[in-house]
Amino acid sequence: MQIFKKVAVIGIGLIGGSLALDIKKKKLSQEVVGVSRHKETISLALKIKAIDKGSLSLNIIRGADLIIIATPVDTIIGLEKEILRYAGRDCIVTDVASTKEVISKSLGGIFPNYIGSHPLAGSEKRGIMSASCGIFKGSLCILTLGKKFSLESLKKIRKMWRVLGAKVIILDPKEHDKALGFASHLPHIIAFSLMKSIPLNTLRFSARGLKDTTRIAASDPSLWKGIFLSNRRNILKAIDSFQGNLNKIKSAIKTNDAKALEKILLKSQKIRELLK
Amino acid sequence: MQIFKKVAVIGIGLIGGSLALDIKKKKLSQEVVGVSRHKETISLALKIKAIDKGSLSLNIIRGADLIIIATPVDTIIGLEKEILRYAGRDCIVTDVASTKEVISKSLGGIFPNYIGSHPLAGSEKRGIMSASCGIFKGSLCILTLGKKFSLESLKKIRKMWRVLGAKVIILDPKEHDKALGFASHLPHIIAFSLMKSIPLNTLRFSARGLKDTTRIAASDPSLWKGIFLSNRRNILKAIDSFQGNLNKIKSAIKTNDAKALEKILLKSQKIRELLK
Repeated sequence: MQIFKKVAVIGIGLIGGSLALDIKKKKLSQEVVGVSRHKETISLALKIKAIDKGSLSLNIIRGADLIIIATPVDTIIGLEKEILRYAGRDCIVTDVASTKEVISKSLGGIFPNYIGSHPLAGSEKRGIMSASCGIFKGSLCILTLGKKFSLESLKKIRKMWRVLGAKVIILDPKEHDKALGFASHLPHIIAFSLMKSIPLNTLRFSARGLKDTTRIAASDPSLWKGIFLSNRRNILKAIDSFQGNLNKIKSAIKTNDAKALEKILLKSQKIRELLK
Repeated sequence: MQIFKKVAVIGIGLIGGSLALDIKKKKLSQEVVGVSRHKETISLALKIKAIDKGSLSLNIIRGADLIIIATPVDTIIGLEKEILRYAGRDCIVTDVASTKEVISKSLGGIFPNYIGSHPLAGSEKRGIMSASCGIFKGSLCILTLGKKFSLESLKKIRKMWRVLGAKVIILDPKEHDKALGFASHLPHIIAFSLMKSIPLNTLRFSARGLKDTTRIAASDPSLWKGIFLSNRRNILKAIDSFQGNLNKIKSAIKTNDAKALEKILLKSQKIRELLK
């Protein structure tokens, strides 16, 4: 089901590479090209047939009718001007970043056909070697729209994600960043903080509890540093809320208040049941 | 491989029930009896052949040469005097509780053949309906010893856990509680606090990250309340350490200090790699 003539994926890591693989598999585009800063990434992407052509230079994106930016958040800002040297303003542009407010402003300000995408299909892994087909199947993909947006571009981008099996939700970039500050960024901060608090000599006593709560602490620091800093205001609020709840539990333990403690734990357990 | 003549399991939930099933399967005892406060639990335990006989009364433990206490931590204290009405002081006694210092004192003070057990094989699930064979295979089981202990009892208890597939480590009860305060109790407190901090309207944006970090927030509040309160001193220290690390991350985000932030995240990521 062809939607595009030439798709250019800038950044062919876990998400960019998997997306390229899927686009080719579902024949959503006549051609898929990829840009990376690393030769080895391009070689591997070509080898696993994620892309038809690859380059270290943005020159290769010329003529693309869809540009997908799949680089870390903090490398996207500023890239729009680079892209504009090779692509027309009327090109459809999307990204797959975990924060949307800042990025929508910069990309949306230049490309009228920009639609933000955030596929919730990442993991603690990274790189083209972790890319695979079908990772978006059954996942959620949030699309964000600026004040002005092109309905036709929205339809095409939505169709692409749906064909790849994602459930699509549309949000305002601000709403997105607020919600994800809680639902994704906060858990990452907590996992990083928790992992750093475990003395090395007690790691051998860890069971599945510690392993599961800290799985995402194996995530890429340079990637997440950018995500955290690009959503500071919301994340600081989420941390405040978490600290308030932790202090309530701490205080109940300190004062040996079994009733208060059980009440708090029960509320958490009930919320967790909604997550299944 | 018979080690015992009559094993009595007091509390036939997830751990007690699974243990009873395994003991019968491996023929470690001629007879396995179970005690529960609930008729339905006994019926189900009999039905799945976890026990040969069951009773609401401790009377059934008479003649047991191994008593396994598998009730929540806060119900164990005081139970030793009840048990003594039906069992001899020379009976081997163990428990499966998540904290050991308080329990070792009370049980060890009465039963010279007491050996503490902590199989790290629990989950967020609970009850005999979640019990199954083989859950201890490949897991860690920590045995704790008081200042005085019986070498013969230790050998028998260790043999039992090894036959069930657990890797056995021996620790002092104090050391156990300190280590598990970090490796198990802290992650549970963090998971409960985190779950309570997620606004209900953002739950729909959760991906595997939030689900994994909060899986253990589905754990039983009444069980964990008892664990937390029986290890207060160590847990409060562990929370302090966590709060210190969280504050460092928060401060780096607040001051937009990308370098400091990445450095902290990198340390956490490296520790997480040791957990694999």
